[in-house]
Amino acid sequence: MPSPELTPGSRGFIIPIGGAEDKVSARAILRRFAQLCGGPDAVIAVVPTASVDPETPDRYRRVFGDAGVAEVRVVDVARREDATAAATTLAGVTGVFLTGGAQLRLSTLLGGTDVARVLRRLNAQGVHVAGTSAGAAFLSEHMIAFGKEGGTPIAGQATLVPGLGLTNRVIVDQHFRQRDRMGRLLSALAYNPFAIGLGLDEDTAAFIGPDNTLEVVGSGGISVVDAGGLEHSSMATVEEGKPVEMVGVRLHVLVEGSRFDLQARRAFPAPARPDRG
Amino acid sequence: MPSPELTPGSRGFIIPIGGAEDKVSARAILRRFAQLCGGPDAVIAVVPTASVDPETPDRYRRVFGDAGVAEVRVVDVARREDATAAATTLAGVTGVFLTGGAQLRLSTLLGGTDVARVLRRLNAQGVHVAGTSAGAAFLSEHMIAFGKEGGTPIAGQATLVPGLGLTNRVIVDQHFRQRDRMGRLLSALAYNPFAIGLGLDEDTAAFIGPDNTLEVVGSGGISVVDAGGLEHSSMATVEEGKPVEMVGVRLHVLVEGSRFDLQARRAFPAPARPDRG
Repeated sequence: MPSPELTPGSRGFIIPIGGAEDKVSARAILRRFAQLCGGPDAVIAVVPTASVDPETPDRYRRVFGDAGVAEVRVVDVARREDATAAATTLAGVTGVFLTGGAQLRLSTLLGGTDVARVLRRLNAQGVHVAGTSAGAAFLSEHMIAFGKEGGTPIAGQATLVPGLGLTNRVIVDQHFRQRDRMGRLLSALAYNPFAIGLGLDEDTAAFIGPDNTLEVVGSGGISVVDAGGLEHSSMATVEEGKPVEMVGVRLHVLVEGSRFDLQARRAFPAPARPDRG
Repeated sequence: MPSPELTPGSRGFIIPIGGAEDKVSARAILRRFAQLCGGPDAVIAVVPTASVDPETPDRYRRVFGDAGVAEVRVVDVARREDATAAATTLAGVTGVFLTGGAQLRLSTLLGGTDVARVLRRLNAQGVHVAGTSAGAAFLSEHMIAFGKEGGTPIAGQATLVPGLGLTNRVIVDQHFRQRDRMGRLLSALAYNPFAIGLGLDEDTAAFIGPDNTLEVVGSGGISVVDAGGLEHSSMATVEEGKPVEMVGVRLHVLVEGSRFDLQARRAFPAPARPDRG
């Protein structure tokens, strides 16, 4: 089962980030994450498995070091056989950060290994787990592995595969506005409308708390696609490559400070700001 | 989360059946299911949503009636808006049976509705849930919606979508030997090797108990494909339509009376029978 909470409300935050998060100036998301993990007492493990760029670990070492965390470790898995040893690196961490890259590297290299098992257990016990881009896609039970761009859903547009499974309440898509992904997220939900789609713009994160309410942090928007009240999906009968009919999708576009209750499926807009004028 | 058990070990059986189960002579699987649900005290709800054949409900009414169960009800959902009323039919049942047909009808019509929610809750509370063919595919968290036949895995051969989610420990494929589906089950596991593949021959069922040990019942075999110890999967880099490399799959072919512990990933062969002479 995905990461059963030991006692309800005690699991750590799950934090998908839409990719390209600010790593140089304000760094709102990464600083907020570091703070959540304990600030000067934080011990953060970076999982760079999605990436083949050898500089990825050092980049995040610097960013989290600059954010003042006590210790940054790297969970080094380049082959499946590395995972058992690498899992020991996770002992005592207060937060885990999965970098971007290719999400199928994460599922094929970590799926069913001790690293995946320990990540699920740690999150259930209260450790916060964030992922950006490919790392964000991997966090939930159903992961979009790849798909075609475009605003409206086409049958076969998205390929869903099993992810890490920290939650099954959401299906995440990232670089959402930048790569025109509304259609592929809709098509993923049309198969089985139980989950909630989170389309994350770049430099934008959903901080999903133990109470299953998420808060938006960052400079872009989050498109929350709720197909739970769907009156009709044609996915059972539509031909591959043809448009999918969906009647009754609810859509919310949320920005920094907004919250969304995944249980009640209810949005709470950000507190009013002074009028522009 | 998929069907959290209220107390460990208290959930009902989950029973995927490979399709074409014997409905006329010995009926080993259906009788065993009826017995498990209470025999003469059983109240069984039939969910015919996968099927568009109007005779499906009556066929199972007769079969379970002949098996001596107290009451057979039909959960009638032809459109998503029927689901809230239909879910009330489930009050007080001791078993649920999902018929064959098209599994995308199940996920698109029931996903995110009260019927799905109540089925998950009932199973967590001890009610047994069986499904045959499409109904079997739908039971678990990751469902093979469709795919191409063939013995070896090809990238893109299987389309995975979210299912009912009573368990995420297994990915089920049905009509397994009859429709040459080893390749598509392997390709589904190659994305993320955490789950265990169950290839169910026709007239063959896996009775998955609350202790996560399954027992084989029926006239065919179950191919248990355990990719948890996989040393390598090429799914992250392989091109669509090309063969997928997988190193280190464990395969067991089990027959009636055999058991498999899904937690320990260990097979227990059927007790020895007298020698053929």
